[in-house]
Amino acid sequence: MRSAFYISDGTAITSEVFGHALLSLFPTEFNHITIPFVETEEQARQVCKEISDNFKQTGERPLVFYTIVNSDVREVISGSEGINYNFLDQFVAPLEKILGLPAKPEKHRTHSIHEKTYDIRIEAVNYALANDDGSTTDNYAEADIILVGVSRSGKTPTSLYLALQYGIKAANYPFTEEDMGDMLKLPPKLRRFKEKLFGLTISADRLHQIRNERRANSRYASIRQCRMELREVENLYRKEKIPFLNSTRFSVEEISAKILAQTGLTRKKY
Amino acid sequence: MRSAFYISDGTAITSEVFGHALLSLFPTEFNHITIPFVETEEQARQVCKEISDNFKQTGERPLVFYTIVNSDVREVISGSEGINYNFLDQFVAPLEKILGLPAKPEKHRTHSIHEKTYDIRIEAVNYALANDDGSTTDNYAEADIILVGVSRSGKTPTSLYLALQYGIKAANYPFTEEDMGDMLKLPPKLRRFKEKLFGLTISADRLHQIRNERRANSRYASIRQCRMELREVENLYRKEKIPFLNSTRFSVEEISAKILAQTGLTRKKY
Repeated sequence: MRSAFYISDGTAITSEVFGHALLSLFPTEFNHITIPFVETEEQARQVCKEISDNFKQTGERPLVFYTIVNSDVREVISGSEGINYNFLDQFVAPLEKILGLPAKPEKHRTHSIHEKTYDIRIEAVNYALANDDGSTTDNYAEADIILVGVSRSGKTPTSLYLALQYGIKAANYPFTEEDMGDMLKLPPKLRRFKEKLFGLTISADRLHQIRNERRANSRYASIRQCRMELREVENLYRKEKIPFLNSTRFSVEEISAKILAQTGLTRKKY
Repeated sequence: MRSAFYISDGTAITSEVFGHALLSLFPTEFNHITIPFVETEEQARQVCKEISDNFKQTGERPLVFYTIVNSDVREVISGSEGINYNFLDQFVAPLEKILGLPAKPEKHRTHSIHEKTYDIRIEAVNYALANDDGSTTDNYAEADIILVGVSRSGKTPTSLYLALQYGIKAANYPFTEEDMGDMLKLPPKLRRFKEKLFGLTISADRLHQIRNERRANSRYASIRQCRMELREVENLYRKEKIPFLNSTRFSVEEISAKILAQTGLTRKKY
């Protein structure tokens, strides 16, 4: 199997995202190897040796996706025996022309603690944890968004993703049987913040499957119970005009992107 | 201010990461606009209108970073009035030659629920939450890694990031004053899993600052208490040969990348 190296003087996240997106266009598998924090020529030479060894072992020239600010270190990697993609590079000169500005690369440009919004993101993670699963409803004034839905419809991972990636303070509140009674009504503690509510729903079959993995053969997991709860919350969303989406076929990344597009919430980080 | 559009038929995360990395090389600000899930020609025409309107308003041609699988939809965006970067495209033909394989783009290649490792990542998030902050020590047999350190040294956000991004099951355990007694010893419940332990430490000044934001002027936040606790844990790490790193100057992305590089843990997702 051919190897793909992702190399950087930082986290190498940019190289990984770019390289993986490119390789995912091809119907074949790769052996992925990430080497972050290559900051000296000595380290870069070590990486080149690893690339050469890999080439010898596999008989296939490895693909090398890299971004490195220091030109001496970059030079060393550019000379590796792999097929080298300094993938940002070719965009820089044309963009300098368009912007009328010389590029001024600095180390740790992205994914570092020096990003202006870093503290906001960590604060948002702490907020999401403290306000997960309806554990408290006292801090909703501070929320950017409050995700609502039945148990196991994807609220918690979505809240965490919104916080960690975008610095958005997302609380989440599960509608329980207590809330439902004869008919689900919007609890007063939520009604006060109605404009922040966003509903999640999910197919009954998928919910049944997820709950069954947690509590096999319980009433909680029964398809009948799942159907009932979902009917109740979807009726509520429609009646109260709460925006909502069905998470069944979507990843947390997709759910989050859709929520941002639908609500117009401002992300704190790109 | 010039605008940068990130457009895709999926989440647009790849466009965002690429575009943002490129633009971060320039010492100027941009107005970032993400438009995910552009899946029809009609939607694409709407996006083109938004780009034109932006150009008219700002007087500066917007930068447009996009990846779209459907060729009719892509065609429409390629004709926008922006400066269009179909940034994966130029790498495809040379790579087809190298791999001896035609590209076979499919929708939702990355960041989707169809990725093989998606369920592993969500399971890891649930694991991180259930085993956060020493809340239970019963499931350590299942852990890929157990982060240890004093309160507020970065364990929780790092555990969540490792889970969400890489599908790694990370528990975390805070050393408390109870554990410390006269001298911090490794609790037996941790000793059993010693090979999974990874320590975090932080500068006393930074810890003091973080704790002070939480509980101002408490003994817990005092610089003296912070110094004492950090001395104890660092001594323990050295004595027990527990690998560790100082998180003071690093983001969760950087801490996670360093942990992965140092431990050789296998990420479940790129």
